[in-house]
Amino acid sequence: MKLVKNAAGRLVPIEVNGQEQIPFRGINKHKPTGYKSKPPIRSCVDYPWDGNKLVKDLKTALKKAGIKDGMTISTHHHFRNGDYVTNMLFDIIHEMGIKNIRWFPSASFPVHQNLIKYLEDGTIHHIEGSMNGPLGKFTSEGKMKGIGVLRSHGGRYQAVQDGEVHIDIAVIAAPTADEFGNATGDRGPAACGPLGFALVDSEYADKVIVVTDNLVPFPCYPWMIQGNNVDYVVKIDSIGDPSKIVSGTTEITKSPDRLLIAEYIAQFLEDAGIMKDGFSFQAGAGGTSLAFIPFLKERMKAKNVKARFVRGGSTKYLVELLNEGFTDYILDGQTFDLEGVKSLRENPNHINTSPFTSYNFHGKGNFASIVDAAILGATEVDVNFNANVVTHSDGYLLHGIGGWQNCLYSKCTILAIPSFRDRIPVIVDEVTTLCGPGELIDVIVTERGIAINPKRKDLLKAVKNSSLPIRDLKEIKKEVDSICGGKPAKPKLNKEKVVAIVKWVDGTVLDSVFQVYTD
Amino acid sequence: MKLVKNAAGRLVPIEVNGQEQIPFRGINKHKPTGYKSKPPIRSCVDYPWDGNKLVKDLKTALKKAGIKDGMTISTHHHFRNGDYVTNMLFDIIHEMGIKNIRWFPSASFPVHQNLIKYLEDGTIHHIEGSMNGPLGKFTSEGKMKGIGVLRSHGGRYQAVQDGEVHIDIAVIAAPTADEFGNATGDRGPAACGPLGFALVDSEYADKVIVVTDNLVPFPCYPWMIQGNNVDYVVKIDSIGDPSKIVSGTTEITKSPDRLLIAEYIAQFLEDAGIMKDGFSFQAGAGGTSLAFIPFLKERMKAKNVKARFVRGGSTKYLVELLNEGFTDYILDGQTFDLEGVKSLRENPNHINTSPFTSYNFHGKGNFASIVDAAILGATEVDVNFNANVVTHSDGYLLHGIGGWQNCLYSKCTILAIPSFRDRIPVIVDEVTTLCGPGELIDVIVTERGIAINPKRKDLLKAVKNSSLPIRDLKEIKKEVDSICGGKPAKPKLNKEKVVAIVKWVDGTVLDSVFQVYTD
Repeated sequence: MKLVKNAAGRLVPIEVNGQEQIPFRGINKHKPTGYKSKPPIRSCVDYPWDGNKLVKDLKTALKKAGIKDGMTISTHHHFRNGDYVTNMLFDIIHEMGIKNIRWFPSASFPVHQNLIKYLEDGTIHHIEGSMNGPLGKFTSEGKMKGIGVLRSHGGRYQAVQDGEVHIDIAVIAAPTADEFGNATGDRGPAACGPLGFALVDSEYADKVIVVTDNLVPFPCYPWMIQGNNVDYVVKIDSIGDPSKIVSGTTEITKSPDRLLIAEYIAQFLEDAGIMKDGFSFQAGAGGTSLAFIPFLKERMKAKNVKARFVRGGSTKYLVELLNEGFTDYILDGQTFDLEGVKSLRENPNHINTSPFTSYNFHGKGNFASIVDAAILGATEVDVNFNANVVTHSDGYLLHGIGGWQNCLYSKCTILAIPSFRDRIPVIVDEVTTLCGPGELIDVIVTERGIAINPKRKDLLKAVKNSSLPIRDLKEIKKEVDSICGGKPAKPKLNKEKVVAIVKWVDGTVLDSVFQVYTD
Repeated sequence: MKLVKNAAGRLVPIEVNGQEQIPFRGINKHKPTGYKSKPPIRSCVDYPWDGNKLVKDLKTALKKAGIKDGMTISTHHHFRNGDYVTNMLFDIIHEMGIKNIRWFPSASFPVHQNLIKYLEDGTIHHIEGSMNGPLGKFTSEGKMKGIGVLRSHGGRYQAVQDGEVHIDIAVIAAPTADEFGNATGDRGPAACGPLGFALVDSEYADKVIVVTDNLVPFPCYPWMIQGNNVDYVVKIDSIGDPSKIVSGTTEITKSPDRLLIAEYIAQFLEDAGIMKDGFSFQAGAGGTSLAFIPFLKERMKAKNVKARFVRGGSTKYLVELLNEGFTDYILDGQTFDLEGVKSLRENPNHINTSPFTSYNFHGKGNFASIVDAAILGATEVDVNFNANVVTHSDGYLLHGIGGWQNCLYSKCTILAIPSFRDRIPVIVDEVTTLCGPGELIDVIVTERGIAINPKRKDLLKAVKNSSLPIRDLKEIKKEVDSICGGKPAKPKLNKEKVVAIVKWVDGTVLDSVFQVYTD
């Protein structure tokens, strides 16, 4: 496999799974040309006039959709670890004797480890999509036939929109749907919240199958997925395990170190002047991100400040901000707990968004760059503010990119990280896998201090008189290395064998994930 | 100009404005091939990171959009006769010295007669879009340089989606918008209701300009038009005259004949068994259609029947049905009075729809064919149930098609027409212009009786024991002709000169509109 050094100095292949690739050219340096993907023109003549697209079962739908060897089949991950549909789908595909499927999920979870047997027997050729847990491990060990392609949520939309990935059949599991194919995620026994990750699939796939366990009379509204894009509807008994789709409650971290990080972030937003009337922020659903919200709320209350919008993944903590008048809107891409789902369903100011609105880099702007501050995590950062979110320092691919890369475009990107995990330092000389160039990362907050990217002179100036422990990143690293008894061991990687690539938001190749030697 | 006889027996050109045409092949006979139109891929790199797409004025936006001679520029008609923006737009285009624009409105109204001077001086080459009033008259008299192309709302979506019409610049007037270009029609001083007629423009045009007089901080929600499709935003003082955009009140007809028609329709829906729990209907905003709603409501109340949905154009009469629990939903494409706008804004079960969801014939089904009954009007019908909605029997083109053709696909299409207007019979031997083939028209209701299309044996059977005056259409015609003193005079048409064509919902040419001799 031929590798070249890209503009970030990382070795990347120029061809992946038979498709030519463009190496990363630098932040905002790649200009796309050409035209968006063009789905075939359909006609009402070929669809039931009464709008009833129900077929007997998923196998029938796949047959009608013309499934055959080598096709690309997509699924979404709104059900997270509670997904029943994807495993069922591949059981059927296997039973039908279909081979060499390119599986194009928006993400995979531990529940999908059932699919390892289909990766082994050739039912699935390879995965293009985030791999959380077992499938990532399988891939890391060099066992997948093809090469994995990791994309951000926005990058997935971009890849389909731009025609890099043509989806033959999209299978969209929907908590509620009607016979016409209109579908929503905000209600039904397996309610998950938004369905935005499946939007691009519904718009561009040749054939679209909606699978639901909660069929309602036309019209199912909201129609997060529009029936006008759907070919077949399948009713099954249960699409997922609600307890694993959303948690009944999401919990704030109890770790004193992480609470300190959360408090620092809240103070930073105030001291840097970001927390002001009409501001906006995005925070994930990790314990630290959750913990930061109540701290910030106290400060907003004290200063009588109201946000214009906050961005989810939503949780009860964001819902509280909305209900108590601390923000006009939640712009939500996914929902992590039941209170988030309820709020999305019932509060008109809790708004469903999608990778198209929020993250697609090949659009006429997107929401991510409008956000004043994004609070994100990382598995590793390096002294140049570069960050990794997909591999651990042992080289194993265990996480997806999610919206992380897209959020780096916020006006102030803050990484909240403990300085070490399991006695392994998180600040390294060079990240194992580059997911986000340091150029876009403004602040790193650890329990030992806050490092501001030297490029952001404005931020450095803004917090000059703050009581926050603003420190040099290298200094923090040195301290942590000494506490942990030295730098972390280098992962044992086979640099001849690329097992996956990390795409940048513009479709270029930012880095390679290499095979881990298992001895 | 070469004319051929199409499958409806009408003479139509095979080339129009230099573009090849497919003559109508019969209902559901034309199968489209090929792929949807593909807009150019854009990149966030070329748009402001803070999401602020405001430019100084409309002229600046047009310049930035690269306006030049011969381009196609689109507008929408949600402001009806209260539109300020289109006249302003063409004043600027004229001032810039740009020539030969193809104007692609969703419809034009009497307020646009200002544009006749631009049709005369070559600023506008021709109009493709509905022409209500003066511009239709201008076209009928053979004064337009190019040939008019009349499409239904669904046909307009289809034509752009399929690449028959490429829009260079879309100008979308929006009652409320943010700087990113998200726009809604349900609020603001010039609130008009939905903005669905501009949806396809926003999705497929090369450049999209939003013009508003009510700028709100990001996010403007609902985003009926998505900022992710918008290039520039322009703020002006006033986009329209609210009193001419929606009427404060819409009034039911006071004509005894029309009230009788309305009553017949309500009874027909009950007697034919269409009015039953979970049913649906669509009615326009004409006096007769409005009058039918209260009659139907009384019957629904008496029989304890609830509709699943009703389709607008909405008015206070539909809003009453929703508020009083006679329907679960209003699926609304446009709003005709202030109560409709308020309901759309405030009632989550009053749902915004678009020509994509409701009418596009080149989709995977649409809503129109799911509707149980559509109550429509016509300028003429003939003895074979064919109908005309664009020309009068003097040959003048005075109306647009609207969603009329699309609604013919409902399960029961009912035309509500007085048997004569101004002593001119409405039932003729052959319609002046064919807009809807009789094959799709099921019932014609006049004050003199109800004619059921002989093809609909099921309906004939269903009302066999009804007290309704079910009659033969030819019989009614004979009676009317005798009352009016004979058949109407034939229009004086120049059959050598096609001034406009009528497209069918599948993009084929259904009929020609010929020049009227003015002597």
